Amino acid sequence: MADTEPVGAEGSETRRPDRPWEALRACLHAGSSAELVAFLDHLPAGEMARAVSRLDADDQVRLLTSLPPDQAAALIDTISDAQATELMDLLPASEAAAIVNELGSDEQADLLGTLDQRDAEAILAAMDPAEAANARRLAQYDAGTAGGLMITEFLWFRDDQTVRDVLEDLRAHADKYSKYDVQYAYVVRPAAARDESAAGQLVGVLRLRDLLLSAPQRRVAEMVVRQTLSVDVDTKLDALAEFFDRHQFFGVPVVDARGQLVGVVRRQDVEEALADRADTYYLKLQGIVAGEELRTMPLVTRAGRRLAWLVANVALNLVAISVIAYYEETIAQVIALAVFLPLISDMGGNAGVQAIAVSIRELSLGLLKPHELMWVALKESSVGICNGLILGVLVGVAGWLWQRNAYLGAVVGVAMVLNTIVATVVGGAMPLVLKRLRLDPALAAGPLLTTITDMSGFFFVLSIATALLTRLAG
Amino acid sequence: MADTEPVGAEGSETRRPDRPWEALRACLHAGSSAELVAFLDHLPAGEMARAVSRLDADDQVRLLTSLPPDQAAALIDTISDAQATELMDLLPASEAAAIVNELGSDEQADLLGTLDQRDAEAILAAMDPAEAANARRLAQYDAGTAGGLMITEFLWFRDDQTVRDVLEDLRAHADKYSKYDVQYAYVVRPAAARDESAAGQLVGVLRLRDLLLSAPQRRVAEMVVRQTLSVDVDTKLDALAEFFDRHQFFGVPVVDARGQLVGVVRRQDVEEALADRADTYYLKLQGIVAGEELRTMPLVTRAGRRLAWLVANVALNLVAISVIAYYEETIAQVIALAVFLPLISDMGGNAGVQAIAVSIRELSLGLLKPHELMWVALKESSVGICNGLILGVLVGVAGWLWQRNAYLGAVVGVAMVLNTIVATVVGGAMPLVLKRLRLDPALAAGPLLTTITDMSGFFFVLSIATALLTRLAG
Repeated sequence: MADTEPVGAEGSETRRPDRPWEALRACLHAGSSAELVAFLDHLPAGEMARAVSRLDADDQVRLLTSLPPDQAAALIDTISDAQATELMDLLPASEAAAIVNELGSDEQADLLGTLDQRDAEAILAAMDPAEAANARRLAQYDAGTAGGLMITEFLWFRDDQTVRDVLEDLRAHADKYSKYDVQYAYVVRPAAARDESAAGQLVGVLRLRDLLLSAPQRRVAEMVVRQTLSVDVDTKLDALAEFFDRHQFFGVPVVDARGQLVGVVRRQDVEEALADRADTYYLKLQGIVAGEELRTMPLVTRAGRRLAWLVANVALNLVAISVIAYYEETIAQVIALAVFLPLISDMGGNAGVQAIAVSIRELSLGLLKPHELMWVALKESSVGICNGLILGVLVGVAGWLWQRNAYLGAVVGVAMVLNTIVATVVGGAMPLVLKRLRLDPALAAGPLLTTITDMSGFFFVLSIATALLTRLAG
Repeated sequence: MADTEPVGAEGSETRRPDRPWEALRACLHAGSSAELVAFLDHLPAGEMARAVSRLDADDQVRLLTSLPPDQAAALIDTISDAQATELMDLLPASEAAAIVNELGSDEQADLLGTLDQRDAEAILAAMDPAEAANARRLAQYDAGTAGGLMITEFLWFRDDQTVRDVLEDLRAHADKYSKYDVQYAYVVRPAAARDESAAGQLVGVLRLRDLLLSAPQRRVAEMVVRQTLSVDVDTKLDALAEFFDRHQFFGVPVVDARGQLVGVVRRQDVEEALADRADTYYLKLQGIVAGEELRTMPLVTRAGRRLAWLVANVALNLVAISVIAYYEETIAQVIALAVFLPLISDMGGNAGVQAIAVSIRELSLGLLKPHELMWVALKESSVGICNGLILGVLVGVAGWLWQRNAYLGAVVGVAMVLNTIVATVVGGAMPLVLKRLRLDPALAAGPLLTTITDMSGFFFVLSIATALLTRLAG
């Protein structure tokens, strides 16, 4: 490869424009921190993650430690989660801590959650104590719940404060608040002598624009919009998605079991979590089951992660082909059957996978509940019969014309009809059954389906052929 | 099914709790508009879309026309796009227009874009003229660009206005602005006598919190933060995603070719578009290629949409099995080969699909460019060799033990090694090649891959077996 070119800051013009990591490497070794920041700022959109991923480990560490911590944190945000985890693993805890300090509270919790417990502890110990305490608290919540998605950077005031208090606070912390994403400030109850536990309970919201038009001595309690909607820390992602579909809000306050305000979930965090879930789902579906894979990872990781799923599939396949082995006698008399076996089983897999896709999507959109098995079976059987008949005629005619044998055409045609119906119904039902068994449909539905449709396809072709053997071989 | 139960408002307590549409139907026929709103508000999270989808067309129309337009618009937001399009199709244009008036500008454009041209025109003609003009303007932009994703609900002022002007405007339009999602107001150039075209050009942003602390006679021009980042209307989704990864903003102003401010793209819109794209991608990958499918759609739609993909797959499969037909003589002498053919071809598909998944993901994350074919082929060949050798030994030993024939074991083992390597490399390269040919990898990669790996798998098994025929059959 071209990595052996002479390296130097002024040489970057002559480098191939499609290899920005070469110029980045040159800048890392020859440039100042300011030059590096300028270089990264001028990388074309979409090139940052690729350029960083193609650097070797030493250069990646050099890059992160050369940047100011807030710039390094922005870089960590840009690249993929797997890359970010890898990079943080390589850094000394103190350098890593300086970067994590600059991340948003939800990203802190996510990133620390993907690291080894020991590495995460080392970083937490070196972090700003307030940030570390906050990250520890957020780490307790499940990733797919309001607690796991919420941020703790939001404006809040007590209802016994005045407009002047609020304005002074806004002015004093203008710098910190400039990163906050709220049009509202949340209002909580102050500590009261008679009821200690009420302190921090959510009262309502204060519209910042109302502050513009109010007398300084007015109390927050007079301006607060009460009866604010809120969600519980345990609220699941799907329920949050529906909440934001139903309500045109940009964030929702999160309260714990005692009604105390603990964070804010923003619409964008919910959208991002949904996209991440779809991404993970799609990787699992295609047999990338042990977490995301990047080609810059070591060979052992990449090959090993894929192998487990392949070996499981070999085992399932051996089960399926035992049906063929059972009918070897029939094949010996009509060799042409061997030609059509892969066609019938493969088409069963195709028809079944379509039904799986529709079921999984309807489940995730909330249009279908796992107990509605009969409804799905009915809906799918009609589709299976329609498409099975059409495909059966197609394949039957192909078999007849090809081998000049109408009986062979009939065998493969009928087998195709029956197997398409089985595959469509089983495919539609599979995600519901797996969900009720608390298994992951993304992981198990595909391999299980093809095992079943292979077996049923082989069985239909070979059992019908065996019954008609005298006609077929004649 | 239980749809024949007596229906009445007071009967809803006895209905099955897992069939909320029964109670909804009762409320529709017996309740007032206010009762209906209350019923929908109290539906548990996640039940709204399902309940609506299970109503028949008449009741769906009744539901939308019974609700106040803003509530109907919120309902349209909650349900899936395909459902929303279906429902709008059923409504008279005037009723549809009242609802569309209440949607956000980006949702107006999306929804009208999915309707027939004629239906969309009828609705536009019945809409509020200003809203309609805005929707028409937005409809010109490509869905996957900043123009297609942007909203036009944002605060903007001219730089020759004063703080007092701004505050008066905020007060006068408090109601309208309450739906806006901006911490910033955007500042544009006023119309100037000497340069008409400069009017509306983006100058910078005005932080609302700065207004709190400024004298009323101060001019916006003195307070504006200049050098604001902006994106062009044609900016693609991936570039927008990277923009928001790089910059901790919640929205970015969108300018046209003349630098005039035309809209704002919010982070949440980009996240939502990414999730939608992943969803579409995953449906196509699983053979749902003609747009989303819901089981509440008519049978003809559901069966027909799936059929096109299945028929294409039958055609590809017939090509693949012609390899087996070519070697019928060999199978006639070693029937056991027929048992292993589906195993070898199926495992090739599995190994290839993993490589496809990694390539498509790296392409969409910007970690890989379509021209980096050699790099991918090298990276995948090492994985293919590792996993091919392990799977080959497994399958070879299984073949040997099962049929008590070491030569048979050698044939299927070696074929497995070779086919896994071919499948892994072809799978990794396929999305890059399709992308360069401007074909859709989601649609074509799977069927093309399995055709190739079926053919190569059959060929490896049968050609090696033919070469060793005397030993195998002995």
